[in-house]
Amino acid sequence: MSEAALIAALELGGTKCVAMLASGPDAILEEVRVPTTRPEETLAALEAVLDGWRGFAAIGIGSFGPVSIDRQSRDYGQITSTPKPGWANTSVARRFADRYDVPVGFHTDVVGAVLGEARWGAGRGLDALAYVTVGTGIGAGMIARGQPVDGLTHAELGHIRVPRLAGDDWSGACPFHGACVEGLASGPAIAARTGIKGEDLPADHPVWDSVVDALANLMGTLTLTGVPRRIVLGGGVMVGNPHLLPRLRTATKLTLNGYVVRPELEDMDTFIVPAALGANAGPLGAVVLGQQALAERDATPFTRV
Amino acid sequence: MSEAALIAALELGGTKCVAMLASGPDAILEEVRVPTTRPEETLAALEAVLDGWRGFAAIGIGSFGPVSIDRQSRDYGQITSTPKPGWANTSVARRFADRYDVPVGFHTDVVGAVLGEARWGAGRGLDALAYVTVGTGIGAGMIARGQPVDGLTHAELGHIRVPRLAGDDWSGACPFHGACVEGLASGPAIAARTGIKGEDLPADHPVWDSVVDALANLMGTLTLTGVPRRIVLGGGVMVGNPHLLPRLRTATKLTLNGYVVRPELEDMDTFIVPAALGANAGPLGAVVLGQQALAERDATPFTRV
Repeated sequence: MSEAALIAALELGGTKCVAMLASGPDAILEEVRVPTTRPEETLAALEAVLDGWRGFAAIGIGSFGPVSIDRQSRDYGQITSTPKPGWANTSVARRFADRYDVPVGFHTDVVGAVLGEARWGAGRGLDALAYVTVGTGIGAGMIARGQPVDGLTHAELGHIRVPRLAGDDWSGACPFHGACVEGLASGPAIAARTGIKGEDLPADHPVWDSVVDALANLMGTLTLTGVPRRIVLGGGVMVGNPHLLPRLRTATKLTLNGYVVRPELEDMDTFIVPAALGANAGPLGAVVLGQQALAERDATPFTRV
Repeated sequence: MSEAALIAALELGGTKCVAMLASGPDAILEEVRVPTTRPEETLAALEAVLDGWRGFAAIGIGSFGPVSIDRQSRDYGQITSTPKPGWANTSVARRFADRYDVPVGFHTDVVGAVLGEARWGAGRGLDALAYVTVGTGIGAGMIARGQPVDGLTHAELGHIRVPRLAGDDWSGACPFHGACVEGLASGPAIAARTGIKGEDLPADHPVWDSVVDALANLMGTLTLTGVPRRIVLGGGVMVGNPHLLPRLRTATKLTLNGYVVRPELEDMDTFIVPAALGANAGPLGAVVLGQQALAERDATPFTRV
């Protein structure tokens, strides 16, 4: 049964990677951290860990991006155009699929997080959910009908352009878009604008008005995709500044202005909620990616997916 | 085989409804138009049509909205909060499911259109596609992995708020959001702003700058969902003003500014394309909705979906 299957789960992060042998949060058998250095060194270290493990039925990988999740494409399973030195065009999923005779699930870290939160966290039992991380970058992952919402690529909704607060003409910090949501509300954007890290800024600093406004527009756009029954928020900026969440709920209600009429939207305290899985969200999300790859293989027994 | 199954397809529109007995664009056996009046009169007229037809294996319904597509909800299959007199909270899908002993597929007209364009039209063979109608309203439908992208409800991305062109402070025509995309670029918005219908405005009228800018932001946001391998555009404003499409392609490229790196995005002439199914898009989309309902029933033979 794939639900309880043991998975070799990998979270590939910008500074560290986590390998976890688990079938869920209550069944974590092993957990190993490896620093993210050059790809050859890092991936070989992860392989050395997996070589020592027995009994995993699949591998799940949640990676920093951008990655290619397009199975119709030759570059499927690669980290693609990342600025991280040495990592552009690094094959990840195929490398592990070639080495271990098990199905491999592969997606972004944030899609892993939304799958993990839907299985065991703040969106437990929901088949349609969004997860947004507000930290070094701003990323969004969605699932609908229990599956990642993707196609050409994974979501990059942190980069949508949004209206500006009246009188706010700061140019923004995104090298591509200036004042997109990430360019206005990510940790580096806040630091670039104020010269102070977010967690050291008082709650009444005027920059938060701009941050809340940009994030509320992102929440509004996510709601208008029709997908999420709930939006789960994580990332260092959210965790480090607890005053943001209530303000964001109020601002999101204002931006929607009653347009989408569903009971779930009446109480923003239950529609926009903090992440529940904490530091384990990444590797546990990768566990679900592995379990989905296994279920998919079992659903089509005559072909290796 | 559900691919070739004969479907009783219904397009419910604001002014007229179309009933079509068909298995595809090359196999249309019957087609009947019924004016949209009061719901009891209109739905009874459609039932009278279907009562006379034999051999359909499923019913597909693409409806004007908003509708409830949430199968976990008691109001599934209803037209919900429409301002159209008499139609709010009208049960549609259950009514036909109760009368005919076949599976019933139900979604918005625009999701029907994206399914039809993906099967037989401008997105043929693509499993991930977006369709946008720019007309009386602005609606977007997406499919990913061949299925509608939905959850809490269907997409309402025509109502996203977008940055404004420098110097443009017109308040917009949307009763909920003022200058959202629909409030800036729908047919009624253009007419409200200029006093002239879109098709009578010259291509060099300055209002088109604002329309193109708003629509390009919608194209950009759709692209950043990660879903569409192509975006198909229809609706009266697009069809009636052919100068818009090339301008919109250029503006979309500018707003993305090279951020999403995929081969499909390099040539905007093949990424953003006009709809191909024309007047038959609605009922043919409903044919696909019926075929999907049939396939779903056949995939789970022990329960009626």
